[in-house]
Amino acid sequence: MKAISHKLVLKGSYFTATTVDQVEYQQDRLVCIDEEGRIGQISAPDEAGYQGMIRQAQGEGTFWELAADQYLLPGFIDLHVHAPQWPNAGLALDRPLNEWLSTYTFPLEAKFSNADFAAEVYADLVETLLANGTTTALYFGSVANAGNLELVKACLKQGQRGFVGKVVMDDPDQTPDYYRDSSAQQALQDTEDFILQTQKLTTTSQIKVTSVVMPRFLPSCSPEALAGLGQLAQKYDLPIQSHCSESDWENGYALSTYDKRDAEVLDHFGLLTEKSVMAHGTLLNQDDLALFRQRGTGIAHCPISNAYFGNAVLPAKQVVQQQVKIGLGTDISGGFDPSVYQNLRQALISARMLSDGVDHDLAPEKRGTHAPSLTAQNAFYLATRGGAASLNLPTGQIKPGYFADLQVVHSKYATFMQQSEQDIFEKVMYHTTASEIDQVLVQGQLVVGEKIIAQA
Amino acid sequence: MKAISHKLVLKGSYFTATTVDQVEYQQDRLVCIDEEGRIGQISAPDEAGYQGMIRQAQGEGTFWELAADQYLLPGFIDLHVHAPQWPNAGLALDRPLNEWLSTYTFPLEAKFSNADFAAEVYADLVETLLANGTTTALYFGSVANAGNLELVKACLKQGQRGFVGKVVMDDPDQTPDYYRDSSAQQALQDTEDFILQTQKLTTTSQIKVTSVVMPRFLPSCSPEALAGLGQLAQKYDLPIQSHCSESDWENGYALSTYDKRDAEVLDHFGLLTEKSVMAHGTLLNQDDLALFRQRGTGIAHCPISNAYFGNAVLPAKQVVQQQVKIGLGTDISGGFDPSVYQNLRQALISARMLSDGVDHDLAPEKRGTHAPSLTAQNAFYLATRGGAASLNLPTGQIKPGYFADLQVVHSKYATFMQQSEQDIFEKVMYHTTASEIDQVLVQGQLVVGEKIIAQA
Repeated sequence: MKAISHKLVLKGSYFTATTVDQVEYQQDRLVCIDEEGRIGQISAPDEAGYQGMIRQAQGEGTFWELAADQYLLPGFIDLHVHAPQWPNAGLALDRPLNEWLSTYTFPLEAKFSNADFAAEVYADLVETLLANGTTTALYFGSVANAGNLELVKACLKQGQRGFVGKVVMDDPDQTPDYYRDSSAQQALQDTEDFILQTQKLTTTSQIKVTSVVMPRFLPSCSPEALAGLGQLAQKYDLPIQSHCSESDWENGYALSTYDKRDAEVLDHFGLLTEKSVMAHGTLLNQDDLALFRQRGTGIAHCPISNAYFGNAVLPAKQVVQQQVKIGLGTDISGGFDPSVYQNLRQALISARMLSDGVDHDLAPEKRGTHAPSLTAQNAFYLATRGGAASLNLPTGQIKPGYFADLQVVHSKYATFMQQSEQDIFEKVMYHTTASEIDQVLVQGQLVVGEKIIAQA
Repeated sequence: MKAISHKLVLKGSYFTATTVDQVEYQQDRLVCIDEEGRIGQISAPDEAGYQGMIRQAQGEGTFWELAADQYLLPGFIDLHVHAPQWPNAGLALDRPLNEWLSTYTFPLEAKFSNADFAAEVYADLVETLLANGTTTALYFGSVANAGNLELVKACLKQGQRGFVGKVVMDDPDQTPDYYRDSSAQQALQDTEDFILQTQKLTTTSQIKVTSVVMPRFLPSCSPEALAGLGQLAQKYDLPIQSHCSESDWENGYALSTYDKRDAEVLDHFGLLTEKSVMAHGTLLNQDDLALFRQRGTGIAHCPISNAYFGNAVLPAKQVVQQQVKIGLGTDISGGFDPSVYQNLRQALISARMLSDGVDHDLAPEKRGTHAPSLTAQNAFYLATRGGAASLNLPTGQIKPGYFADLQVVHSKYATFMQQSEQDIFEKVMYHTTASEIDQVLVQGQLVVGEKIIAQA
């Protein structure tokens, strides 16, 4: 009896997060990928039919065996990228937020009304993120749809699972003349246009690009725009992204303008839903977190960016323990590095620094929070399952029924001794860069590297 | 009239730190390297003889012109590497110090009594550090000289400016049975043997390897060993490295055992000299820093490691402003990354977190120190001139008379717009990894990559 044919049968050892705290390691499994790009059966060497599946796949030219030093991991999910800020990655990080925005960020974002410039930058950005193992990305676009549609096209062309939003910023008090929506009404009209045009672009593609409703943050939006965006998100059943309690300044803006907390105002306008992912949240308090949990709203934790603009460390361990959805974001260019791995490492470092404290003039017991820190397992969960949960996506795990969004990595440095699976896992977490990522698949499609198909 | 011949004439644009705060950028300079591997003349395009020097070097086959996207920088200096911990880089960082030392670190270091194993690991480590642009490294070895001598040989063979020490740890209360010096006397004898054997190995080499006197830290050494090591350093006029006020535990050990601060005890034993470089110092107070300045002792600032084991952030900006010598260290494997660039970036991030604070439950004014943070220029100074000053070496600058310890780097990411020299500098600081380092020279000798010699 002939078994079912698969699009691809990947033989290798893999790591996948089973819980917040636990990572499963499986050796020499056959991971079968179906025509729709989902993981089907996963077969172990001691199962009946294992050898038969290999022979069949070899015969069908769909068998790919990883090398001994390669490991299969779920692709990473980047929950916060300002796509038009990519050319500025690494620039001006020692400037105050005001100067950073007005001198560096807004003038650059304004250039993305030019579709040619946008196409050039976005092709490079999507390629860079894929090369870093990021199979799904949630992108802030710019004000002008001409540029935003190029980002949708770049994701479709390169096969990345993209979530893209037209940024809304219509408040003249907080936005420059040359870079703002001309009115709340125009902002809402442009957002709806972008939603409809994105739908049209993405109808025939297997890997979807989803449009996202995207008020920049409270300070840059009028109440009319915020209310209208909440309604649009509901009308089209779309994800929402904004920034929430990122810094003392932003947190304070809501308090002084609305006499409410940032999260409450966003909620009032219908912007905290089970499809919302709010960036940063470094200053969220317990009430805010309870509201996030109640609404099913996720947090994009961006630890590199937070060191520059967040004024505190998000207690990511405690957030995840409180069952609030949370994943990782690079926040290009508030963060300088397009790698989720690099942000995963900074999440670990920052969590330690939050727990131990930073100021040696304080007594040890007063220096930090002494709360438990993130483990490497926790951080891996955030980069995979946490991001997937925040976007309500069946990805981020190596498990039947889930999208085959995968990365194949090899060890960076020589190993001189027998290594336990825990050792291998930690080394992959602490050392992987784009150079160690050999192949990337999104929904079963190869988007980085080359398939190594063995014939029978 | 024919000009002087050079070993190499490098044409390119370079960055070099002129002060703690300032980086000089020079375009299209000719950097001439003499037979001893020192930088001789540096010639600008508008100077008489510039074209003649190019023609002569072309004729002599010594002309090397960098590509338009390449930049010349001084090689970096790593002031703290535990060489025998290299196989453990990235492992067990979420364990408490005790378990990290007893389960992971000491058993591994003990293996370096085997010269073959040591040779294999050290060849890989030195190669890795050179590939990361580290032209000078200050290495902790292990207890056994068999392994330590292999580290000296690896530096000599690969042409790295190495500083290597035999670790002393003779206190039975703080060291395991299987890994300690059998007595203070034996530790001193082995140290002196290592000094003499290193001298012998390095007599004929142009690039020197220097032996270093190296008590592990106060808790692992008897007073006899500490006193004897101070005398050996004086007798042979050698550098000294140990750890000082790294953590609350270590800082507390000196107070409870000697009723003095760590720095005072080291000074008492003659171990704080103008040739000493103490690792970490996260808990040094103002009196300690005054003592360091008075003695001319340097600090190896290891920001990644400090997040895991330092219990606080060294206020590097304030240390450098107080004219205490300070450079950067990777602290493999308390730190997981062998790149000084990566530590430079963490130094910037950690300095911001020290200034802003980490705990969002505190009011902003109580959250951090609000002291000025490091700039990218400051961090570059630490990685180059700061390290060189700590080791009293004529390197770390692109300047006549200094060693031609150099790295050639290219921009990692596409540039989409005109970039200022400040932009280029920041992108090099924030994005360079080993993949962007095309060539490395130590004292004029090419040790990584290939020379691109153009003929006339």
